[in-house]
Amino acid sequence: MTYGKVSLVGAGPGHPDLLTMRAYRTLQQADVVFYDALLSEDFLSVIPTGIPRFHVGKRCSHHTVPQREIEDLLVRWAKKGQHVVRLKGGDPFIFGRGGEELTACLKAQIPCEIVPGLSSLNGVASSIALPLTHREMVRKVMVIEGHTLGQDSKDWQQLAQFEGTLVIFMGSRKTSLIAEKLIEHGLSRTTPMAMVESDSKMQPHAQVRTLEDVISYGMPKAIDGPGIIYIGPTVDLFLQWQASQQVEGAITLTPFISPDQRMKA
Amino acid sequence: MTYGKVSLVGAGPGHPDLLTMRAYRTLQQADVVFYDALLSEDFLSVIPTGIPRFHVGKRCSHHTVPQREIEDLLVRWAKKGQHVVRLKGGDPFIFGRGGEELTACLKAQIPCEIVPGLSSLNGVASSIALPLTHREMVRKVMVIEGHTLGQDSKDWQQLAQFEGTLVIFMGSRKTSLIAEKLIEHGLSRTTPMAMVESDSKMQPHAQVRTLEDVISYGMPKAIDGPGIIYIGPTVDLFLQWQASQQVEGAITLTPFISPDQRMKA
Repeated sequence: MTYGKVSLVGAGPGHPDLLTMRAYRTLQQADVVFYDALLSEDFLSVIPTGIPRFHVGKRCSHHTVPQREIEDLLVRWAKKGQHVVRLKGGDPFIFGRGGEELTACLKAQIPCEIVPGLSSLNGVASSIALPLTHREMVRKVMVIEGHTLGQDSKDWQQLAQFEGTLVIFMGSRKTSLIAEKLIEHGLSRTTPMAMVESDSKMQPHAQVRTLEDVISYGMPKAIDGPGIIYIGPTVDLFLQWQASQQVEGAITLTPFISPDQRMKA
Repeated sequence: MTYGKVSLVGAGPGHPDLLTMRAYRTLQQADVVFYDALLSEDFLSVIPTGIPRFHVGKRCSHHTVPQREIEDLLVRWAKKGQHVVRLKGGDPFIFGRGGEELTACLKAQIPCEIVPGLSSLNGVASSIALPLTHREMVRKVMVIEGHTLGQDSKDWQQLAQFEGTLVIFMGSRKTSLIAEKLIEHGLSRTTPMAMVESDSKMQPHAQVRTLEDVISYGMPKAIDGPGIIYIGPTVDLFLQWQASQQVEGAITLTPFISPDQRMKA
């Protein structure tokens, strides 16, 4: 029997509306779909009816199917001659472990294609009007992930000295540590940090604090969804623009009132 | 008369296939479209027929319409009550100057929305199966632009010590300088650099060299289109996968033969 193929498809930040047209078309040609835990139920509507679909993937502390098992599934179904679509949150190659799945398929001699997806990196930022670069202000972006962040003080130094926009994936439970270490290594105490979380309807919730306020008052997660952190001067631009109330698709900004301010009120 | 609105829409890396569904739908609702110079003619097919469309924007050394004039156009048409779509290459907020256009519109009291786009950063990388992160190999990405790169030696030091994937926009005419400075500041001579350019049919052409080979033999642009540079260990993964010839949508890899090898042949 001839082998099928595996398409590793980036689904974007979570709403099916942010799939690319190529990704959508690839889904329409699938014989079977394996999709990530982070994708909302709405994605079921863009998978053709009548074909098998499996919820795999993982979510912080809720491992559903181990990575190795996902790889085996892709290979097994493709060997049966099926066109397998692996629908992955964001982009397959930015913290998406697409490389591991690709390696497993190529080892098994399965033909593969990659369909890029809108990464949360800029997908979330642009959706809420938070620029990652801005002329004469910021010309660099660094993308890191929170899990393995800064076991090494050299790492923190690099981050603190970066002078661009820092974007941290999977770090929303470590905001105080991040703020503390960045200040300790020289970043200004008044640098703004935004944390953006998405609820099950993909409505973004943003909180903004200065680093010193994050240390003093924390930045607890507002909802159960995943969060992404942006640190740098463009976060202030974002606040200004939100204040103008002319930006559509406006986000829910969780108001920050420090205990001091509450006392005065 | 009531004002219309301005939608700043990211078009993705260049092919209309890589528009998001939301971007596509926004285009269908436009009264007028202003689109970037870097977008291919194919984009004309996704703009509804019968509505005015204007080719603006700029391209390295071919300034078409100055930035300020673009902003004035957006404001003027929106004030006439029109729904203006500004279709921008990539994502509006990664080197897209979206922030400037948003500021101009908000100053003029025009309601705005941002529709994110697939950035070339990962759009190009995923399209050719070049991972930006890979487990137990690379967990950080830095995005910079070539124009203003490294007037300062501190900048080069930061880049050379980064230990992640470096992605350089608008640097494809500076490859030798980049390679030279990175080695001078301590990056290994054998670190691989890929330059990916796209032709008018959006077929990507990739060249790969070690940094020392870039210095010795250069890395001339293969075609006239824009280029994006990736530096770091995952470039070797990309080469391995390309060699397996099972990756679909395979790219044109410009073969690199050094003069020494040519002599031996």
